[in-house]
Amino acid sequence: MPRTKGDHDARRRDVSEAVWRVLAAHGFGGLTMRAVATELGATTGLLTHYFPTKRDLVTYALDLLDTRSASRPRRTAGTGMSAVRAALLDILPLTGDATVSNRIWVSSWDTALADPELSDDYARKYARSRDKLRDLVAAAQESGELPAGDPARIAAGAQSFVLGLVVQALFAPETFPPDRQAELLDDYLAALVSLPSPNDGRAVRT
Amino acid sequence: MPRTKGDHDARRRDVSEAVWRVLAAHGFGGLTMRAVATELGATTGLLTHYFPTKRDLVTYALDLLDTRSASRPRRTAGTGMSAVRAALLDILPLTGDATVSNRIWVSSWDTALADPELSDDYARKYARSRDKLRDLVAAAQESGELPAGDPARIAAGAQSFVLGLVVQALFAPETFPPDRQAELLDDYLAALVSLPSPNDGRAVRT
Repeated sequence: MPRTKGDHDARRRDVSEAVWRVLAAHGFGGLTMRAVATELGATTGLLTHYFPTKRDLVTYALDLLDTRSASRPRRTAGTGMSAVRAALLDILPLTGDATVSNRIWVSSWDTALADPELSDDYARKYARSRDKLRDLVAAAQESGELPAGDPARIAAGAQSFVLGLVVQALFAPETFPPDRQAELLDDYLAALVSLPSPNDGRAVRT
Repeated sequence: MPRTKGDHDARRRDVSEAVWRVLAAHGFGGLTMRAVATELGATTGLLTHYFPTKRDLVTYALDLLDTRSASRPRRTAGTGMSAVRAALLDILPLTGDATVSNRIWVSSWDTALADPELSDDYARKYARSRDKLRDLVAAAQESGELPAGDPARIAAGAQSFVLGLVVQALFAPETFPPDRQAELLDDYLAALVSLPSPNDGRAVRT
């Protein structure tokens, strides 16, 4: 029987799933042709049909991470502080799927930092993410829910907070279950809300 | 001439330096016998004298990272909030050396997350680091510089903040030069200081 377009698409989905499972279990450090072939129940020979080189496999994996992150489910955002909170919660490993994709993100940092081009690409990704957050922060300031202050600076702080919380939760999921993560994020947001506006004399430099 | 203890120690130092330089440039993903041998100007045959297997090399590199981190220069701490601030500044990539060691730490997360035993080890490391921070937070609360609240919870938040700032600064050193990092940390600390004590009715949940 001739192979159909449907067979081809199904096989591509199988390859994606196999790459994703290898990344989830072993990270980018364990992403090899052999590991993906084993996961797929195929030969490494077949794999080279999809990925002529290891670099092609890594590029594919990075694209897959991007695509899956972009299409992940997100909270309906609301406005003001609830939109800021929703955007930050969307980043945290609060579900099984979000834990896997965060684990793969963190793992990809090793690969990204070793490659200047990829590193720039990651820097741009995080800058875009901060810009979105900055706009949400500015909206929360306009609605009076957040005190005045450079919204880009507040966004940079908030993004730092959630990225570091991701890392800690990945290493210690029992210490940082979803409720604990949300609680810590709410502490962070409560502190932002209570921060005096700049130059009103209450800000403390230690 | 027979080889002396001095020769042996000097060669071990050379090996350490070569491993460190490979990690700084390529991360754990690029840590291979060949890369270290090239860096050392030696054969991979000689390398197997020090590291019979790749796993031995990785274990050595992880120990080296631990040792160098433990012996890194630290700020004289003072007490209260200035001790909290000093401990957090000590983590950030504010110097060339601190940037290299942070870059290697972040890179090691891929290796650590892929290995359950190592992952537990990392979880314990970060727990110890939070415990130290918790004690400093508690001391700052006792001196009245920080409002009341669970010091372990405040420490977990502060550690999240600096870890995430490390990651962002590594990817975008021009966006997060040392002054900017310190400024963002000071914003974070100012928000902690201004946070109302729990249960006084001012804390805002969004």
